[in-house]
Amino acid sequence: MSTDKTFRPKARLPRGFRDRGPAEIAAERRMLETIRKVYESYGFEPLETPAFEYTDALGKFLPDLDRPNEGVFSLKDDDGQWLSLRYDLTAPLARYVAENFQTLPKPFRRYQVGQVWRNEKPGPGRYREFTQFDADTVGSASPAADAELLMMVCDALEALGLKRGEYIVKMNSRRLLDAVLESAKVSGLQRGTVLRAIDKFDRLGEAGVRALLSEGRKDESGDFTKGAGLDAQQVTMIMELLTSSADRYDTVAAMQELQTLKNILAENKYAEDRVQIDTSIIRGLEYYTGAVFEAQLTFPVANEAGETIIFGSVAGGGRYDDLIARFTGQQVPATGISIGVSRLLSAVKQRSEAALPRLIVVLAMDDPARSFAMAAELREAGIRAEAYVGTRKFGDQLKYADKRGAAIAVIEGADERANGKVTLKDLKLGAQLSKGIESREQWLGERQAQLTVDRDRLVQEVSTMLKRGRW
Amino acid sequence: MSTDKTFRPKARLPRGFRDRGPAEIAAERRMLETIRKVYESYGFEPLETPAFEYTDALGKFLPDLDRPNEGVFSLKDDDGQWLSLRYDLTAPLARYVAENFQTLPKPFRRYQVGQVWRNEKPGPGRYREFTQFDADTVGSASPAADAELLMMVCDALEALGLKRGEYIVKMNSRRLLDAVLESAKVSGLQRGTVLRAIDKFDRLGEAGVRALLSEGRKDESGDFTKGAGLDAQQVTMIMELLTSSADRYDTVAAMQELQTLKNILAENKYAEDRVQIDTSIIRGLEYYTGAVFEAQLTFPVANEAGETIIFGSVAGGGRYDDLIARFTGQQVPATGISIGVSRLLSAVKQRSEAALPRLIVVLAMDDPARSFAMAAELREAGIRAEAYVGTRKFGDQLKYADKRGAAIAVIEGADERANGKVTLKDLKLGAQLSKGIESREQWLGERQAQLTVDRDRLVQEVSTMLKRGRW
Repeated sequence: MSTDKTFRPKARLPRGFRDRGPAEIAAERRMLETIRKVYESYGFEPLETPAFEYTDALGKFLPDLDRPNEGVFSLKDDDGQWLSLRYDLTAPLARYVAENFQTLPKPFRRYQVGQVWRNEKPGPGRYREFTQFDADTVGSASPAADAELLMMVCDALEALGLKRGEYIVKMNSRRLLDAVLESAKVSGLQRGTVLRAIDKFDRLGEAGVRALLSEGRKDESGDFTKGAGLDAQQVTMIMELLTSSADRYDTVAAMQELQTLKNILAENKYAEDRVQIDTSIIRGLEYYTGAVFEAQLTFPVANEAGETIIFGSVAGGGRYDDLIARFTGQQVPATGISIGVSRLLSAVKQRSEAALPRLIVVLAMDDPARSFAMAAELREAGIRAEAYVGTRKFGDQLKYADKRGAAIAVIEGADERANGKVTLKDLKLGAQLSKGIESREQWLGERQAQLTVDRDRLVQEVSTMLKRGRW
Repeated sequence: MSTDKTFRPKARLPRGFRDRGPAEIAAERRMLETIRKVYESYGFEPLETPAFEYTDALGKFLPDLDRPNEGVFSLKDDDGQWLSLRYDLTAPLARYVAENFQTLPKPFRRYQVGQVWRNEKPGPGRYREFTQFDADTVGSASPAADAELLMMVCDALEALGLKRGEYIVKMNSRRLLDAVLESAKVSGLQRGTVLRAIDKFDRLGEAGVRALLSEGRKDESGDFTKGAGLDAQQVTMIMELLTSSADRYDTVAAMQELQTLKNILAENKYAEDRVQIDTSIIRGLEYYTGAVFEAQLTFPVANEAGETIIFGSVAGGGRYDDLIARFTGQQVPATGISIGVSRLLSAVKQRSEAALPRLIVVLAMDDPARSFAMAAELREAGIRAEAYVGTRKFGDQLKYADKRGAAIAVIEGADERANGKVTLKDLKLGAQLSKGIESREQWLGERQAQLTVDRDRLVQEVSTMLKRGRW
């Protein structure tokens, strides 16, 4: 090996990334499978695009412009072109549609699930790599396309076990915001800063957003964020949007489309108990042009600090009718919604029962070929079984079985082998008994946690023991 | 939107990357699911590590050192540390084990499936992003650990539908190579070049490897690769290793371990028809220290040029007892095998039947709320159904249904609606009939490809039509 023996790198996860173990992986797999089935039942088909896109094709639409590289991981390819890791699944879809426009059915409806990467400041629960599950319809300007996405998200959330009332889908229109910004005479240059300020309404509340719309705001760490520099009247007009009831804007032209969308949904029983208009919903991404959506969970959960909070947003999206025109010059209407899988998972996990412990049978002996044969027999019978493949002694092998959470250890020592027997040790029961050993009777009780049986009755005896739970 | 309207990026895939559509995604999902079930039945548990690792933690073990950045995509984090995208799943596992050593059961056995990235020159069928499915056992020096991995790979290949004889697992030991290189007096500096040369034996044959071991070789494009500079006698000793029968090395000390491994396998019915010793197997990665493995498919497939070839390697691995010591200074025995999912998929795909066409029913009408209601009814009955959400006219809607490969279009025009009816159009039959319209009788026949039924019998009539295939 060519390693320089004098240099020892420290084994450490990169900042803002994480490893994930069996329980979380299994829970996410079940979640993705459930959403996938709902989306496929609506006729959406999967698409996969690569992790990388050319930087110019990806565009720069992330809200967090404070960072020098604008939130994206980028590097130069050896032919001099800049590559970036995708920060969402929408920008790659726009590239895909522009590249394959002629051959796609219109409307083109696809779902995509995958990792995205954001070069952002990591924080508690805030990672630089996470999973999104997107559905998009490209090539239809009809509110029916938006309605379909929202029904599908409701169905997916219910398929995941959420009850009516535990989630709400809120919608708004960027056109309303545009109308308000226009009448408040907010300049194009101020628009980005205003959007980012409004998007923080949930987190910072009214006072925080007011500060960011005017002079600026100092956060808890003492960092100062420069404001949009609006005057008091401008700020008032925008704050009204965030705090008024939606009825107030019923007659505004920008809201007509949203009313149509709402009516289609209501006719299909997706009424106000599931989908509502809320003029404070903005969504941070800059590419939205019309309707914007946000699905929120309404039930309380515990945060990292152990405090009870309302979970909030788990999915978001909207219309982005100009994104494909970036490539082609021709406007193509498009709409989509993205589920933040990792966020949704952490919310649903807190409410669901812990997964049942998997039954694992470990064979602890000195002849691997014989332990493999027994493990194979058990697997044939549908029992999850593994052979111990290490080189340590018997006591350590039993400790290993315990650490693996095994239900039973199958033991074939020299004596057993000579007599055509194996010993089955019930590890769960054994552990319970050994906790409270106080008398000779209890100690004798512990001895019953193991049983010696004929080798050729291995599968039957293990099955029986597993069925009984204890014996 | 802040886009500069005058600049239009070209919509193009980055060089060496690709998009993937429904058929391939579904086939890969089934493949991963099958492998996962086999591996979990052996008691292996899933692990996920992030796409990025710190560059120093990842190490540099890729065989293709000709490129300046040594095959890895790297970038500098904003705190000045270098990050790299993982080029395999083994190096991240070594980092994970070193970081969490105290809390892991030993042996630690995990599987991981995920994308890896290689910053290599792309070519036909050679992508810079691909999927690997790895299983590794860390903390056991026993050949039983290697045996288990090889049995598991055989089981997985058979679970994927490969028959005995359609695949073969070959194994060798790096210790044998080391012994030969030592007796041939090959220097440490030449070792890397020699390894890379030998690893190309399959592709370049005897003459090509001989050239790379001595002066060097000019390829078809005229590029010259400098050789290892060995003399004739040294080259002969190495070529013997690649071309002799394995029996020749039976008595070499380095092969004892491999014999034990082979015996364990044979006792569990993984005999020479599935697992063989082959001294020409080297594997390119530099971190292997003992046994190395390669699973090959033995049946002929068509390559891109339409020529019939033997498919070759679909999985590889081996022992890497020093990789964790890079971090900790303490040797931890470890072994693993990695399935090249994309390669295996392309081989198996050619042999398997095309997936059955999915039945999709498209509702083409002018009232989206009504079409959504019908699609929902059909889905309730387990029929995959979608509503047309575009804004185009009736004829275009039918074209869309055809393009989507729909079996049936459900049509509710104004007349039908007034009479409480819907029209069902069998698109498959309609297409067949319209191909050969030559007479009035045939034209009348085509009319039978549609049927008007009561709206409230929609689900029953569609089910009947689907069951009949044609009606």
